[in-house]
Amino acid sequence: MPRVAVDVMLKREILDPQGQAVERALPSLGFAGVSDVRIGKHVELTVSDGDGEQAARQVAEALLANPVIEEFSVRLLPD
Amino acid sequence: MPRVAVDVMLKREILDPQGQAVERALPSLGFAGVSDVRIGKHVELTVSDGDGEQAARQVAEALLANPVIEEFSVRLLPD
Repeated sequence: MPRVAVDVMLKREILDPQGQAVERALPSLGFAGVSDVRIGKHVELTVSDGDGEQAARQVAEALLANPVIEEFSVRLLPD
Repeated sequence: MPRVAVDVMLKREILDPQGQAVERALPSLGFAGVSDVRIGKHVELTVSDGDGEQAARQVAEALLANPVIEEFSVRLLPD
């Protein structure tokens, strides 16, 4: 049965304080040169029949993503 | 500059109440046949030089994932 991943991210123009917090912590941990950190949700689900990507897209629209501030992408995971 | 995604998930054997909540809400929203929902973090970051995947893996180990209960995967995003 297909396993599908949905990545939900804040839209580009929306401030991401969680990402900023990680980005600011990195230099003191010895990581230079890492920038533009954005943090979102990663959802994996199994679809029992039909078009897994299509079903996952509908689930994301209905439940996982807030279309006002978030966007999402869907991809099939390898078996 | 390479943009890298890090997906951080709870380990298989760790209970995922957030995923369970989504899974239980789906039938009443008209989605049958979706199971085994797991929810984690999706982090995207830009690495200015060197091996982007390697740098992202080190960032994940140091800051993004708790190795006791979480596992992570790293992949290069298409330009």
